Amino acid sequence: MNISVLGCGRWGSFHAWYAQRVGHAVMLWGRAGSAHLKELRVTRTNEFLTLPADIHLTDDLAEAVRAAEVVIISIHAQALRAFLRDLCSRGLGVELGKRRIILCMKGLEIGTGKRLSTVVHEELGSAVHPVVWVGPGHVQDFVRGIPNCMVLAGEEREALRELVDALGSPLIRFYYGEDLLGTEVGAAAKNVVGLAAGMLDGLGYGSLKGALMARGTRELVRLVRAMGGDGETIYGLSHLGDYEATLFSPHSNNRRYGEAVVRGTAGDFHKIAEGVYTAEALMALSEEYGVDLPISATVYEIVTHGRDPRDQLMQLFLRATKSEKE
Amino acid sequence: MNISVLGCGRWGSFHAWYAQRVGHAVMLWGRAGSAHLKELRVTRTNEFLTLPADIHLTDDLAEAVRAAEVVIISIHAQALRAFLRDLCSRGLGVELGKRRIILCMKGLEIGTGKRLSTVVHEELGSAVHPVVWVGPGHVQDFVRGIPNCMVLAGEEREALRELVDALGSPLIRFYYGEDLLGTEVGAAAKNVVGLAAGMLDGLGYGSLKGALMARGTRELVRLVRAMGGDGETIYGLSHLGDYEATLFSPHSNNRRYGEAVVRGTAGDFHKIAEGVYTAEALMALSEEYGVDLPISATVYEIVTHGRDPRDQLMQLFLRATKSEKE
Repeated sequence: MNISVLGCGRWGSFHAWYAQRVGHAVMLWGRAGSAHLKELRVTRTNEFLTLPADIHLTDDLAEAVRAAEVVIISIHAQALRAFLRDLCSRGLGVELGKRRIILCMKGLEIGTGKRLSTVVHEELGSAVHPVVWVGPGHVQDFVRGIPNCMVLAGEEREALRELVDALGSPLIRFYYGEDLLGTEVGAAAKNVVGLAAGMLDGLGYGSLKGALMARGTRELVRLVRAMGGDGETIYGLSHLGDYEATLFSPHSNNRRYGEAVVRGTAGDFHKIAEGVYTAEALMALSEEYGVDLPISATVYEIVTHGRDPRDQLMQLFLRATKSEKE
Repeated sequence: MNISVLGCGRWGSFHAWYAQRVGHAVMLWGRAGSAHLKELRVTRTNEFLTLPADIHLTDDLAEAVRAAEVVIISIHAQALRAFLRDLCSRGLGVELGKRRIILCMKGLEIGTGKRLSTVVHEELGSAVHPVVWVGPGHVQDFVRGIPNCMVLAGEEREALRELVDALGSPLIRFYYGEDLLGTEVGAAAKNVVGLAAGMLDGLGYGSLKGALMARGTRELVRLVRAMGGDGETIYGLSHLGDYEATLFSPHSNNRRYGEAVVRGTAGDFHKIAEGVYTAEALMALSEEYGVDLPISATVYEIVTHGRDPRDQLMQLFLRATKSEKE
């Protein structure tokens, strides 16, 4: 199968490496002028992996879209809409819409709270049905041969089965799911829970991450149900299943950023902590659907309005005495 | 309030320390001949904490039961039935049944799969309604002042509210729940998931603990529902909320034992890993209620029948491709 990967950062370069490894013909696209692309062209290597010689590198978007049956998009979530508009302005929108699109990215659009599949619908047309590929696993672990389970979610079961067959391997075992809404919201929101986890670590209260897991999942189940999705998806691989990587791993950008916020060493680090944007997007959804999200709101107050992490988190976990079901 | 704690091991001594700290008159009972009691009598100290002078130490069970309005029982789960029978044979059963009983212990009876509250009903009478006190937190953290959330569960809401008022503090914030069945099964079963987590750590596959959390909770939700409880309790503090402590902490006996099994250094260590007994009890429940428990069954096969951990765990996580809902 011909697969093009759009985006050549950590995950984009990994997806190209992986797709080639499981037997596909792979093209990896980066922006003209991308430092990542330049590094890969010169050395075939980045901080995480080495790309085999038969992965074709390009900065020609038309070439990358036209060559592929499957297009994997792995760029910054907040850049997706502008990227698709640019692509359409070059006359490539219809062609991309005819390919199988896989979104390997996690986030909700800031300002609107929209899911990334909704952004695709709005920019490429409602007949385009992207699949999302999310779940646990670190690039650092995969390239060392450490396997994991991930999830492919979409609205068309037959397409999911074909992709699972084409992309599954002993390194990544796929589960599939048809609740695209719950999968996307959960995958995005786990980064916000990751920020909270990092803050608890920074305060020396890492043992509260158990309560964080129990309470964090619960508020997101309520949100997904209110939005019309299946609340139980939150307890699957896209959200709870990603907590090891996001709440406990030293590699997690969001956890590390939360820790840095508490220690006053965050600086400009937030640019790589997607949860900062997602927290704001979740506030829009909280209001739109009338669902209280106490943990997400606490993270938002801390990272956006500079409220004191210790006060806010202690109030969240340690002031209320109530039924677990409330 | 007069509180007696029966059992003076790690958790029993902690419960005495804590009850005194929040303002109660406390008696701590240990068996005549108990090494733990002897150590506390001589030094007022054990490996974890120092008991204030006004906690009364005793090996007189009649004195401990009669002095108290609330009796906290914290002994080995598999020893509960024999302990209650012994207590009844001394003519103390009726008196104990008139006290508010709190079970601070996690387990299911081996051979029968029975819950500990069922054991209490069978030995003290069905009119006795014990409360269970479970959830996350390490003794080592609490005595250093690191707070956590825990859960009190029982069938009588008014009694729960009184106990929450009497026992809550900034160190332990209680949630309460009325699904005693789900709370007990979940609290016991998390030790089995902890064994699996340790095995993954031992194999260098700790990043699969995310998938373990997502899949482990799911099979137990099915079990609790089949038993007539509320499946969502599994996602509360008594089970998922205890995963930080059980799946990730270096203090967890069960996680450490799982790791030792993989490394071939387990020896007689299993005696303190309650999950070994619980795995066997879960097999009885799996059969009784017709619910597949693939993770629990895998743990059981490894710890009881000596099956190879790597083969078994890789088969569990990495052979199946299926819907997340299956």
